[in-house]
Amino acid sequence: MNEKDNSRKNQHSNNTDGKRRYYKKKSAVTVPTVQSEESSRTRKPKEVRRTPVRIIPLGGLHEIGKNMTVFECSNDMFILDCGLAFPDSDMPGVDIVIPDFTYIERNRDKLRGIVLTHGHEDHIGGLAYLLKKVNVPIYGTKLTLGLVDGKLKEHGLSGKVDLIVVEPKKTVKMGCMAVEFIKVNHSIPDAVGMAIHTPAGIIVHTGDFKVDYTPIDGNIIDLARFGELGSRGVLALMADSTNAERPGYTHTERNVGESFDKLFKSAEGKRIIIATFSSNIHRVQQIINCAERFGRKIAVFGRSMINVINTAIELGYLNAPSGIIIDIETMNSYPSEKIVLITTGSQGEPMSALTRMAMNDHKKVSITPFDFIIISATPIPGNEKYVTRVVNQLMKSGAEVVYEAMYEVHVSGHACQEELKLMLALTKPKFFIPVHGEYKHLRKHAELAYQMGIPEDNVILAGIGNVIESDGNKMSVVSQVPAGRVLVDGLGVGDVGSIVLRDRKHLAQDGLIIVVIGIERSSNEIVAGPDIVSRGFVYVRESEELIVEAKHILTDTLNRCSYAELKEWNTLKGKMRDALSDYIYQKTKRSPMILPIIMET
Amino acid sequence: MNEKDNSRKNQHSNNTDGKRRYYKKKSAVTVPTVQSEESSRTRKPKEVRRTPVRIIPLGGLHEIGKNMTVFECSNDMFILDCGLAFPDSDMPGVDIVIPDFTYIERNRDKLRGIVLTHGHEDHIGGLAYLLKKVNVPIYGTKLTLGLVDGKLKEHGLSGKVDLIVVEPKKTVKMGCMAVEFIKVNHSIPDAVGMAIHTPAGIIVHTGDFKVDYTPIDGNIIDLARFGELGSRGVLALMADSTNAERPGYTHTERNVGESFDKLFKSAEGKRIIIATFSSNIHRVQQIINCAERFGRKIAVFGRSMINVINTAIELGYLNAPSGIIIDIETMNSYPSEKIVLITTGSQGEPMSALTRMAMNDHKKVSITPFDFIIISATPIPGNEKYVTRVVNQLMKSGAEVVYEAMYEVHVSGHACQEELKLMLALTKPKFFIPVHGEYKHLRKHAELAYQMGIPEDNVILAGIGNVIESDGNKMSVVSQVPAGRVLVDGLGVGDVGSIVLRDRKHLAQDGLIIVVIGIERSSNEIVAGPDIVSRGFVYVRESEELIVEAKHILTDTLNRCSYAELKEWNTLKGKMRDALSDYIYQKTKRSPMILPIIMET
Repeated sequence: MNEKDNSRKNQHSNNTDGKRRYYKKKSAVTVPTVQSEESSRTRKPKEVRRTPVRIIPLGGLHEIGKNMTVFECSNDMFILDCGLAFPDSDMPGVDIVIPDFTYIERNRDKLRGIVLTHGHEDHIGGLAYLLKKVNVPIYGTKLTLGLVDGKLKEHGLSGKVDLIVVEPKKTVKMGCMAVEFIKVNHSIPDAVGMAIHTPAGIIVHTGDFKVDYTPIDGNIIDLARFGELGSRGVLALMADSTNAERPGYTHTERNVGESFDKLFKSAEGKRIIIATFSSNIHRVQQIINCAERFGRKIAVFGRSMINVINTAIELGYLNAPSGIIIDIETMNSYPSEKIVLITTGSQGEPMSALTRMAMNDHKKVSITPFDFIIISATPIPGNEKYVTRVVNQLMKSGAEVVYEAMYEVHVSGHACQEELKLMLALTKPKFFIPVHGEYKHLRKHAELAYQMGIPEDNVILAGIGNVIESDGNKMSVVSQVPAGRVLVDGLGVGDVGSIVLRDRKHLAQDGLIIVVIGIERSSNEIVAGPDIVSRGFVYVRESEELIVEAKHILTDTLNRCSYAELKEWNTLKGKMRDALSDYIYQKTKRSPMILPIIMET
Repeated sequence: MNEKDNSRKNQHSNNTDGKRRYYKKKSAVTVPTVQSEESSRTRKPKEVRRTPVRIIPLGGLHEIGKNMTVFECSNDMFILDCGLAFPDSDMPGVDIVIPDFTYIERNRDKLRGIVLTHGHEDHIGGLAYLLKKVNVPIYGTKLTLGLVDGKLKEHGLSGKVDLIVVEPKKTVKMGCMAVEFIKVNHSIPDAVGMAIHTPAGIIVHTGDFKVDYTPIDGNIIDLARFGELGSRGVLALMADSTNAERPGYTHTERNVGESFDKLFKSAEGKRIIIATFSSNIHRVQQIINCAERFGRKIAVFGRSMINVINTAIELGYLNAPSGIIIDIETMNSYPSEKIVLITTGSQGEPMSALTRMAMNDHKKVSITPFDFIIISATPIPGNEKYVTRVVNQLMKSGAEVVYEAMYEVHVSGHACQEELKLMLALTKPKFFIPVHGEYKHLRKHAELAYQMGIPEDNVILAGIGNVIESDGNKMSVVSQVPAGRVLVDGLGVGDVGSIVLRDRKHLAQDGLIIVVIGIERSSNEIVAGPDIVSRGFVYVRESEELIVEAKHILTDTLNRCSYAELKEWNTLKGKMRDALSDYIYQKTKRSPMILPIIMET
C-alpha cells in the first residue's frame, strides 16, 4: 500500500514538473518501468501502480473505416490516425462518414499531436475536418504526409498545419508518452506500426499491416523490432483484424507482378487497361516495370491516380524511366498495342474513369475488342454489383476482361491468420485489443489470441468511446466518452442526422404525396384546395383515378371538420394525413410520406 | 432452290393439318428429321429447310433472375419458366421485378401452355402475374407444382389454373412441338431440364442444373439421356451459365451433411440454429437426419420455411421421423441442447426470423452464448452487408456463428466449368445459347464452348426480346419483340416506372424543398407565402438561418416578377426553382428536389 502511494506521489510530481522535462526523462522513466515478459507472465508480479494510460478508440471498432484512437496519460493526449468511412446503403446522399470529435474538442488542451500510420483514406480522411477544430502538429512518414498535404490543399488548410516527417525507428514525444515508428508492410508504401511507450508500459499498435518477405521496395516489416519489444515486455497489442477470418498467409505483392507478366504476354497486339487503387504505388510500380519490359508507354487516368502518381514520383516512391509516362493528349500518336492505361475505377465507382470508359462516356477512350482490361483489385463488400456492372459493359464492347481471383491480379494488404499469430508470438502482449474490423473480425482475432494462450480476461473486445485503462497490471474498460459517426453531405458536416436519413429512406421507398389547402385566417374558411402533388409515388398520368378519389376523400374529411377543428392546424393536418394514408394503403399497399401543408391567406 | 421451295410447301401443309394430328406424328416427323451429329458437323449437310423454330428469351439473359423463354413454331407457342428477379439497389421501394408480358398477351391465341423446370422463385415467381393475363395449363414435376400452388393461393388463383404433373422422361405436346422432361440435379428436388422436339430439330434447355453423383434422394441427373440426344443430334443447347466463371466441379450436397455432422458434435450442450434457403429441401433433410442421429428435436421458423417443409412432407420429398418436428409453442419443454431450430434469414433479410433473433426482436427466441448458429448459404451478390450485420449481432450476443466457406456448410446448386463442359460434350449441339446469367457469365460460358470446338458463329450471345430463329441449318437473331422489366410495388404492377424511380433516387440523395405561394387569380396578387417546407434535406432546427435566407431570396425573386410573369405559372415556378437551387447549392453543395407549388385562392 505504501509502495502504491509513493508511486502515485511520484507520478504527480512528474506531472506537475511539466511535460517537456518529463519527456526528457522518458528513456529513464518509461522504458525501465516495464516488466520483463518473464516476470509479468510466469511469476505473480509485484503490483507496482504506475500512472495509468488510457486508450480510447473513437473509430474502427465494430466497423470498417474511420480508424482513430486516442491515447491519454496524465495530462497528455495524442491521436493515432483520423480516418473516414464510406457510407452504407442506409445513408443515402451521404458522401463520407467521420468520427465524432466531441471528446477531442473538450480535451483540446491536453492534445499534443497526431501520429499517422499510413496514407489511406480510412486513416487520414477525417484529418481535415478535425484540423478545422483543433490545430496540432501531425507526424507521419514522408509519403503519408505527402498524401495528407494533398488533402489539406483541397480543404484550404495547406501550410496552416505543422507536418513533421518521422522515419521508421524514430520516436516522437507526446508529453509523458513517446511514440516509436516501426516499419510494416501494407498495400501502400511507408506504412508503420507504433510502439507507444507510456509510464504504464509499452503498447504496440500495428496499424494496417501484412508480412511481405519480398516487398517491391525491399523494405520488409521490422519483425525484429516487434520481437525485441516482446522480449522486453509489451503491456498491450492492438492489431489489425481486417483479415482475421482468413486462414493462412497473404501472398506477396510480387505474385501480382508475375501475373501481370503473363497477362502482358497474352495481351500482345492489344491495348492494355489496368484499373487499381490509386494509393497502391507498388502495384503501379509493377505496371511500370512490365510496361518497360514489353516496350509500352503509360497514360494515367483518373484524378486521384494522377495526384498520387505525381506525389509518389516527386517523393521518390515510384521509379518511372524518363518518357515512359506520356500525356493523355499525345496518346493517339502511339499504336494502341504499345500503350498501357492505368486508371481509377477498380471498385466500379460510378464517376470513375473506368466506369465512364465502360459506359462509353469517356472523352478520350472508347473500349473495343482490341482492349485487354485488368481489374487489379477485389470488390470491397457492398461494391460487388458496381464492379459487375462495369465488367459486363466492358465485355459487351468486346474487350477481354480479367477480374477473377484465379489470375491473382490482386493481393490483400492485410495480414491473414498465420501472420496475426506471428505478431502475437513476437510481441507476447499481456493484454490484447483486436482493432480495425467489424465485430466478427475482432471476435475471430480474439479467438486466435485465446488459442495462443492469452487468457480470455486479458483480451479486450472494446467498442468506440470505451475508455480502456491500465496501470500496467490490469487493463479494463472503465468508462465511456462521446463517440459515433458524423455524416458529411456536400459542405454540411453533421447536419444530416437520423431524422433526415429516416425521411430520405422513407421518400426513397414509397415517394411522397403533398396536400395543400389554403385557409382564410379571419373567417377560418377553406379558400383553396385540397390540391395534391406527388413525387416518386406512382406515374400520375396513369393513376388519375386514384388521385381524383384521394381528393374526394380529403374534401369529405375537411367538410366533416367543425369550426373549432379548422382552427387547430395540427389536428387538421393529422386528420388529412390519416384519411389519405388509409385510402392509399388500401388501394396500393404502399405508405408514401404524406405532407399536409396549410397556407394562411 | 426447288428443294427449299418444296420443303416450305411441306411445312405449310403440315401446319394447316392441325396441331393435334401433327403432334401425333411427332416421333415420326420431328425426331428423324434431325441430322445425325456426324453429318451435321463433318460433312456439308444437304440444306433441308424445315418449319423454323423461334426461341425468344423474355428474361434471364444479361441479368440474374426472371428466367423466361418462349418457344414458337408455326402457329404454336409455349413458355418455359416464368420467374421473378429481386430489385437492385437502384430500384428503391420495389418489391419484385417480373418480365414484360406484352409479347405473350399479343400472341395469346398461339399459347399452348407453360412448362416449368423447378420451383425456385426466379423460375416460377412471375407466374401468378402472367396467369392474371392469360390462363393456360402449367406442366411441371410434382414438387414444382406443389410450390406453384402455394403461390397461386396467395394470389387467389388456386383451383383456377390447370396444373398438370409430368414425371421426368415424360413428354408433353405443345402444338407442333413436344417437350420432354429430363431429370437434373439442383438445390431443390424435382428439377428438370427439357428436350424440346421441334420440326427444325431438338433443342435442349438444361434449366438450372448441376451434376451430383451422390444426391441426397439418390436421383442422379439423367446424363445418359442427354448423351442419347447428343448422339441423335441436338440442334441447340441452352445451358445454365450461373457458375460459368468458376473452374472445377460443384461439390455434392452430401459434403454439407458431413460438415453438419462435425458441427453437431462440436455443438454438444448448446442449442443449434441453422439458417438456410427454405427451398433447399435436401439441406433440410440432412438437418433432420443429423438431428435424429444426435437425439435432437426440430422447431421450424419463418413463414416460407414452414410452408415449404409442409408441402415437401405432404408430397413425400422430406422424410421426418414421427415426432421429430415439434411445435414452436412446446419448444421450451425441451432442454435447449436437445433442439435444433431451422430458420429463414440466411441472406440477412431484414424481416426474416434469423434477423429478428439477431436484433433481439423475436418473440420466441433470444440468442445467448449457449447458441451454436450455422448459416448454411452463401450471400447472393448485394446481400453481403445484410448477412454481415446479422453475423455481427449474433456474435455480440455471445453465440458461436459458423458462416465461412471453410466449413463447407453450403454448396452451390449450379454447374461449374467442368460440368458445363460435360453437358456440352454429351449433347454435342450444333448451336449453343448460354442462358441464365449476366453478360460476363454468358461470355465465359461461350468461351468454354469455343474451347470445345463450337465455331464462334454457332454460339449465340442473345439478349431478352431477341427472336432467335432456326430452320435446322442456320440459327440467328432475326428480330426483336417487346421485352424488359416490370416493377411490382405493393399492389401496383408496372405503375412504378423510370420517372418514379428517378424521383425516388433524387429524394433519397438530397431530400426535397417545397415552396408554396398563394396567388389571388383575379388580381394576380401574391396573397400567401412564400412558405418553405423541407424533408430529408437538413435538420431544419439547426439550419434556421439557411431557410430564412432562402425565403428572402424567393421573396426578392417574386418581387422582381412583372405582372405578366405572375400570370405564367410555369415560368414563375421555374424562376423560383432556379433561384432557390442556385442558393442552396452554393451554400451546401447539395441539390435537393425543389417543388414550387402555387395555390390559387
